[in-house]
Amino acid sequence: MTGGTNSVETLRWRDGGLEMIDQRHLPASFSYIRCDSAEDVAAAIRSMVVRGAPAIGVAAAYGVALEAQCYRGHALPAFNRSLKAGIELLAASRPTAVNLFWALSRMEQRWQQLAEQAVGEIADELLREAQTLHQEDIQINRAMGSHGEKLLPDQSRILTHCNAGALATAGYGTALGAIRAAVENGKNISVIASETRPFLQGARLTAWELQQDDIPVTLITDNMAGFLMNKGEIDRVIVGADRVAANGDVANKIGTYTLAVLAEKHSIPFYVACPVSTIDPKTATGRDIEIEERPAHEVTGFANQHWAPKGIHVRNPAFDVTPAELVTALITEKGVIEKPNQTRIAALFSD
Amino acid sequence: MTGGTNSVETLRWRDGGLEMIDQRHLPASFSYIRCDSAEDVAAAIRSMVVRGAPAIGVAAAYGVALEAQCYRGHALPAFNRSLKAGIELLAASRPTAVNLFWALSRMEQRWQQLAEQAVGEIADELLREAQTLHQEDIQINRAMGSHGEKLLPDQSRILTHCNAGALATAGYGTALGAIRAAVENGKNISVIASETRPFLQGARLTAWELQQDDIPVTLITDNMAGFLMNKGEIDRVIVGADRVAANGDVANKIGTYTLAVLAEKHSIPFYVACPVSTIDPKTATGRDIEIEERPAHEVTGFANQHWAPKGIHVRNPAFDVTPAELVTALITEKGVIEKPNQTRIAALFSD
Repeated sequence: MTGGTNSVETLRWRDGGLEMIDQRHLPASFSYIRCDSAEDVAAAIRSMVVRGAPAIGVAAAYGVALEAQCYRGHALPAFNRSLKAGIELLAASRPTAVNLFWALSRMEQRWQQLAEQAVGEIADELLREAQTLHQEDIQINRAMGSHGEKLLPDQSRILTHCNAGALATAGYGTALGAIRAAVENGKNISVIASETRPFLQGARLTAWELQQDDIPVTLITDNMAGFLMNKGEIDRVIVGADRVAANGDVANKIGTYTLAVLAEKHSIPFYVACPVSTIDPKTATGRDIEIEERPAHEVTGFANQHWAPKGIHVRNPAFDVTPAELVTALITEKGVIEKPNQTRIAALFSD
Repeated sequence: MTGGTNSVETLRWRDGGLEMIDQRHLPASFSYIRCDSAEDVAAAIRSMVVRGAPAIGVAAAYGVALEAQCYRGHALPAFNRSLKAGIELLAASRPTAVNLFWALSRMEQRWQQLAEQAVGEIADELLREAQTLHQEDIQINRAMGSHGEKLLPDQSRILTHCNAGALATAGYGTALGAIRAAVENGKNISVIASETRPFLQGARLTAWELQQDDIPVTLITDNMAGFLMNKGEIDRVIVGADRVAANGDVANKIGTYTLAVLAEKHSIPFYVACPVSTIDPKTATGRDIEIEERPAHEVTGFANQHWAPKGIHVRNPAFDVTPAELVTALITEKGVIEKPNQTRIAALFSD
């Protein structure tokens, strides 16, 4: 493998079904799970076989296409009823992933355009639409990468959190996409990956993904970032996003806000890379984003190992909100927005 | 058990030997390990059966006493040679614990005072000295607690890191001692314990110890502290210390510095509780404290479970340094030192 090239295929269409890397077992085992219906895809999203807002969006689009394939032999009314139920099932799979609703809404629009067509024709076109959305996501990541890499100097040491890589998207990645583009441009980049408790996406996914692509990566526990910044060993921070509010506040994996505060304290640029589909103009500010609290067993241990005393009380917010004023720049496929605020973000949508 | 009372006996002298709780296996199993020689104690310190600067100091003092017991039947020259070798073994057990050297130096002074005595007499007196040091440590913690608790308001929610409790001392604790004293004073205190990767002393030891004493405790991962501070759910931060420099800079468990930066950002008081024996007047500033880097396998997993990809590069600093200007107050057995600096710390030693 050559430095920078993305070698991970997170989702793929194979023999009339959707195959996705089972991310729950990485890096210990690398295997694909096959989905043949909307129900299969919804279950895979719920159980975190696939995660990362853009990847969930693409998976959901294929879920709609699969449901259409399942019912292509039926009469139009039955076909329409089944497709509607499939979309509802997918929409209920995870509540906070903005790209999920965006992708489902796009598939519904295409379906409406095809309302006068034969069932087989609709099914074929919905598959084509999902495949288009899949390819577009990779192109969007590449565009984001080429904008974002300009912010990453040669020889820089870049801290990233959670996994905003190929595994979180259809390929290439958002935050890791900018890093890949910098490496492809010949820059000597090294990455510091924070392990990202409790799910350890940094230790399991980011470390593995960068190792696959021969990009130098150093793993730390989440509480070591301040130490390294204080020692002058971090030049940039770059993360992805789960939802960006209209004013530029960023909801992302728990721990992101702490990194933003540390970056401000040490005058280190803090970047957020995400597609425009992650920005939700209907969410006014970060205060309007509900933070999901997840089950206690994730904090009391990992997988089947539990190290905390039985019966201990736990907090487990899955995300936090970084206020826009701590974000040096937002990197999207449409370009870099420095010091993001309401006006600058609104301009993205008025183009 | 009643709220506040410390029910954990970290070390105890039993039937002519030193027994210590094996902290490596808490909270899954609670058991004592018996030491009968300086070599046994040195091995227990090295392997983290016992940890926490004050507890290591007391253990080392008993190690000297045990070595004297082992050789009480020998002639004075052989006795002296063996005792000297035992002290050297103990001094080499862990390099950074200041209280270790402080305790060994105190035992050596007592030994010198007894140089003219019979071997049996020296052995008896050294055991008495270790037992005195043991009892003093508990009294020091109680004194620290009664000073420190004045800084903790009724109804406050207090974040602590790692374990600066009964398990890190001969009993009662430094940071947790102040919390225990506040609870004994009838204050309604709740504790937020950060899990403290990679060794998980917060999740395993602090959570367990407070649960034993019926003090309300909530466990979080290290990257959740910023989220809770931002929500206004943390009123105070209190931690222990491994070494305090002459200017007030504090070396403590990795992650402490990040909590201090977050506390400053949210205008939350940040307290450090430690005995005067943890302050090293010979260390000018935090820059003079060498930070131990520990093995990679601690970061790539926990115990026998490894979740990071094989061959991944790791950083594993065991401590970080919090500059004095981020410390609201230093709590010692001699009283509270607000805004600690060189002059105020020097005054502690001139009394």
